[in-house]
Amino acid sequence: MIQTKQKQTKKLRIIPLGGLEEVGRNMTLFEYGDSIIIVDMGLQFPEEDMPGIDYIIPNINYLKGKEKNIKGVFITHGHMDHIGAIPHLMPALGNPPLYGAPLTCGIIQKRQEGYHKGGAKLNIHIVTAQDKIQAGPFRVEFFHVNHNIPDVLGMAIYTPAGLIIHTADFKFDHSPITDRPADIGRIAKLGSEGVLALMSDSTDAEVPGYSISEKDIQDTLDNIFEKASGRIILATFSSLISRIQQVITLSEKYNRKVAIDGYSMRTNVSIAYKLGYLKIRRGTLVKPEQVNSFPDNKVTVLCTGAQGEESAVLMRIVNREHRHIRIKKNDSVIFSSSVIPGNERTVQNLKDILYRQGAKVIHYKMMDVHAGGHAQREDLKMMINLIKPKFFIPIHGNYYMLCLHASLAESVGIPAKNTMVAGNGKVIEITPNSISMTKEKIPSNYVMVDGLGVGDVGNIVLRDRQMMAKDGMFTIIVVIDSKTGKMIGEADIVSRGFVYMKGSRELINETKKKVKEIVNKKATSEHSTNWAYIQDNLRDQIGQFLFNKTKKRPMILPVVIEV
Amino acid sequence: MIQTKQKQTKKLRIIPLGGLEEVGRNMTLFEYGDSIIIVDMGLQFPEEDMPGIDYIIPNINYLKGKEKNIKGVFITHGHMDHIGAIPHLMPALGNPPLYGAPLTCGIIQKRQEGYHKGGAKLNIHIVTAQDKIQAGPFRVEFFHVNHNIPDVLGMAIYTPAGLIIHTADFKFDHSPITDRPADIGRIAKLGSEGVLALMSDSTDAEVPGYSISEKDIQDTLDNIFEKASGRIILATFSSLISRIQQVITLSEKYNRKVAIDGYSMRTNVSIAYKLGYLKIRRGTLVKPEQVNSFPDNKVTVLCTGAQGEESAVLMRIVNREHRHIRIKKNDSVIFSSSVIPGNERTVQNLKDILYRQGAKVIHYKMMDVHAGGHAQREDLKMMINLIKPKFFIPIHGNYYMLCLHASLAESVGIPAKNTMVAGNGKVIEITPNSISMTKEKIPSNYVMVDGLGVGDVGNIVLRDRQMMAKDGMFTIIVVIDSKTGKMIGEADIVSRGFVYMKGSRELINETKKKVKEIVNKKATSEHSTNWAYIQDNLRDQIGQFLFNKTKKRPMILPVVIEV
Repeated sequence: MIQTKQKQTKKLRIIPLGGLEEVGRNMTLFEYGDSIIIVDMGLQFPEEDMPGIDYIIPNINYLKGKEKNIKGVFITHGHMDHIGAIPHLMPALGNPPLYGAPLTCGIIQKRQEGYHKGGAKLNIHIVTAQDKIQAGPFRVEFFHVNHNIPDVLGMAIYTPAGLIIHTADFKFDHSPITDRPADIGRIAKLGSEGVLALMSDSTDAEVPGYSISEKDIQDTLDNIFEKASGRIILATFSSLISRIQQVITLSEKYNRKVAIDGYSMRTNVSIAYKLGYLKIRRGTLVKPEQVNSFPDNKVTVLCTGAQGEESAVLMRIVNREHRHIRIKKNDSVIFSSSVIPGNERTVQNLKDILYRQGAKVIHYKMMDVHAGGHAQREDLKMMINLIKPKFFIPIHGNYYMLCLHASLAESVGIPAKNTMVAGNGKVIEITPNSISMTKEKIPSNYVMVDGLGVGDVGNIVLRDRQMMAKDGMFTIIVVIDSKTGKMIGEADIVSRGFVYMKGSRELINETKKKVKEIVNKKATSEHSTNWAYIQDNLRDQIGQFLFNKTKKRPMILPVVIEV
Repeated sequence: MIQTKQKQTKKLRIIPLGGLEEVGRNMTLFEYGDSIIIVDMGLQFPEEDMPGIDYIIPNINYLKGKEKNIKGVFITHGHMDHIGAIPHLMPALGNPPLYGAPLTCGIIQKRQEGYHKGGAKLNIHIVTAQDKIQAGPFRVEFFHVNHNIPDVLGMAIYTPAGLIIHTADFKFDHSPITDRPADIGRIAKLGSEGVLALMSDSTDAEVPGYSISEKDIQDTLDNIFEKASGRIILATFSSLISRIQQVITLSEKYNRKVAIDGYSMRTNVSIAYKLGYLKIRRGTLVKPEQVNSFPDNKVTVLCTGAQGEESAVLMRIVNREHRHIRIKKNDSVIFSSSVIPGNERTVQNLKDILYRQGAKVIHYKMMDVHAGGHAQREDLKMMINLIKPKFFIPIHGNYYMLCLHASLAESVGIPAKNTMVAGNGKVIEITPNSISMTKEKIPSNYVMVDGLGVGDVGNIVLRDRQMMAKDGMFTIIVVIDSKTGKMIGEADIVSRGFVYMKGSRELINETKKKVKEIVNKKATSEHSTNWAYIQDNLRDQIGQFLFNKTKKRPMILPVVIEV
């Protein structure tokens, strides 16, 4: 570590942390000598093979003992993958000052209310794109970019090694809604100062062309509103304030009342409205229980659930579990969102149910009812051309997207040797003349949050869940007389998720017979009773027996009780 | 039933069966009076919420007692979703005659070898597009269409009610590989005879335009082959014979040896080669263990695993579990397939690993290295225009795709009232002048195959699997002295998938104490020992206790043993 420290005094170290394959999305450290600043502190949603896990937070082992070095935490915007780990990690890091734009801080504070009641309050500082923050040897300035939430701050980080530009999650929108266009002038000016390294959002590095403007989305939606003769039910992401504004504006134009449903969406709307990010006329909003008292063509329902999330509003409506709203013939249901990879099948099934219930479904593959929040290939080229960095570090995206973004940078003149694709837990070292990766490996394995447990579910627990999900479990309980070493009565079998027990009496009886054989054979052949040995025998032999009979491999759990 | 039978003597009944939401994909019945023919007999792969299930087969309850009525089973082509249920269902249906094209029958027969050894042999009849089969009152003729396997037969079914056209899974390809173009002349001629109803493939009813020709795919691949300086590893569907031919032809052109790996692909290649559907020069094929003895630029690996399937060849290669092949820098890995909805996330992760290992990845979103097997919107219109049916029945696809296909038909002149969108288990009745749906509901719930069990895993078992996958299970074993009604010793706890047990000793000890309280309180307050009551108490109170402590809800399984 001492050796590393000597290096630190000369070099800027950049360490992406957190996120699964999505490198540097959730949290990035900038370390120079004894000083550290952190950009973002988000969570990641679990993968398919992590059943039951709520979310994953960055591993902060590297920061243990370095808490005092942390000069500031800078949050680019208010999405969960950038703020979600704050309640868990800030107390552990000694609650350093946190900087963010007004809407970002509003969302962070609201969320904090639900966590650690009575715990230390966050040390929040609201900033705007005009502010300059000195944090140890770092001076952080901001610039405005577009995304699918307002108030996103790109970061200009002045370090002793040189100026680093961090784009945040961004796109360029020359006609955004509830927002002003990205500050291209300011970005160009930063570029003219001489930028050492550009860290740029790679999420859509695979997508050709330019992203669509929110104005075009509004025009498409206007067409739909104009023609709809029944209710309009529009599902989107709860933080997509600009989409929410579009729907409210159009509803007002076509004399529709708007019912907003879904806890997270209502919360975000309330924060955004208070801070002036949403314009809503008095009388436009109604409660979900009121929608049935207006004619269908005077009603818009704005809700969560466009990803087919189990407990979200749209799912409750189609499953007839919503207290006030059912799908009717002539409803137009608009999925105003892209489908997050992994949710495709669920969304297909949701569309099926909607059609069966008589609704008309409109989604982004049919019409431009959604624009993503990330710069596409032509926009990404423009960012590189504006910043003209010496070094290029693609961030935010699967590893293969970073690679594609690196090739793209090469195509607009950044030499391949000046580009660094680094995974989470890698250390990038930058001097005014060099970029390299050290041989260190910073702990970056997942910290899983499941209920109240943080990190208590590890690979063993997950593997057990996967196994039980596949073929269930089969517990064998054997009571043994400690005097004779013989089994008392017959074995108890508790099995779930394996076969339908009531229909498998014969199999169970055969298994019980076999258990008795195994135990009593052992008991008579050995005088010292070795329960672990009997348990192993039961596990192996009953496992094999059940596999031969069923070609399934339930988890076998033998329990030997001595009385 | 007698009432229905009277109707049957006058009307043709069409009953789509099997498939989840994908209506009529796996199996369709045509019933006229006492006679039935069946088109296809496939399986469906399970949904995400069916952990451990191998596949799903159609429910044939409706055919119980009607086995003698079945005059023939007509198979359109050799894909699993059209042939996969044959080994399970044909014996139960009394083994009626089965008709299919040469390649289709070859694949069916090969698969049969793995099932029911020594069971009744199938009654297979190989047919060609020129044949006419009389099956009871039905005369079935065939016409050639394109798809992504050769030898697909569309069906012209002459019934006493009129001529029904069933397109099979189809596309039009005017320059196919290892195949001839769809027989548009014959299709037009059938159209000129006056068609009562058209049943047409809806899989791509959402996709605009025309499908790409295999010739274009070949040209793109030729470009990649021309430039590749290292090995080419191409992953595709095991039954995509035309793609396999393209890769072999190009490898021969560029002097590359071809190693084919993956059991299903090798099997299909062997059948197709024997039947003359594949042209391979002597010396082109090498074994996977030989690839390392050739220069990289002289090697092509053709394998399964483009969907990221866990046990397929490509996954074994990237996981370093393949016996002979590892990814090297400069390998070009081509995903020559679309991504089946539900597999997106897995494929993304696979691409990440490939990039990390230094390979170059090419997939269908970047270049035309894959064409789907289904007609797109313009092709679908052309089919309707050629056939000019009186009635239109969209089949093969999610319910919402059928609806989109129905609207498409309306746009080319089929009146909405002449179109019938019917789910699985519905009965469509057709006369020369009418189409309608009866009020019957034919059993069409899923029959799940899990290991050797067919139908032994139902909703209860699945629900248990889902529950255990989410928060694990927690078995509490209590031994009670039958004389005193008091607990002997302390409770045994067996828990998996809940929390990491070794790190949760305190929680477990507290739980054991609580169990003892519950049991002994019960035992002293009641003289007659009611074990079920104690079990309920344990389930509720320990469940609540663990939830308060962890916010997780493992499945609680109390076992009371009396000695």
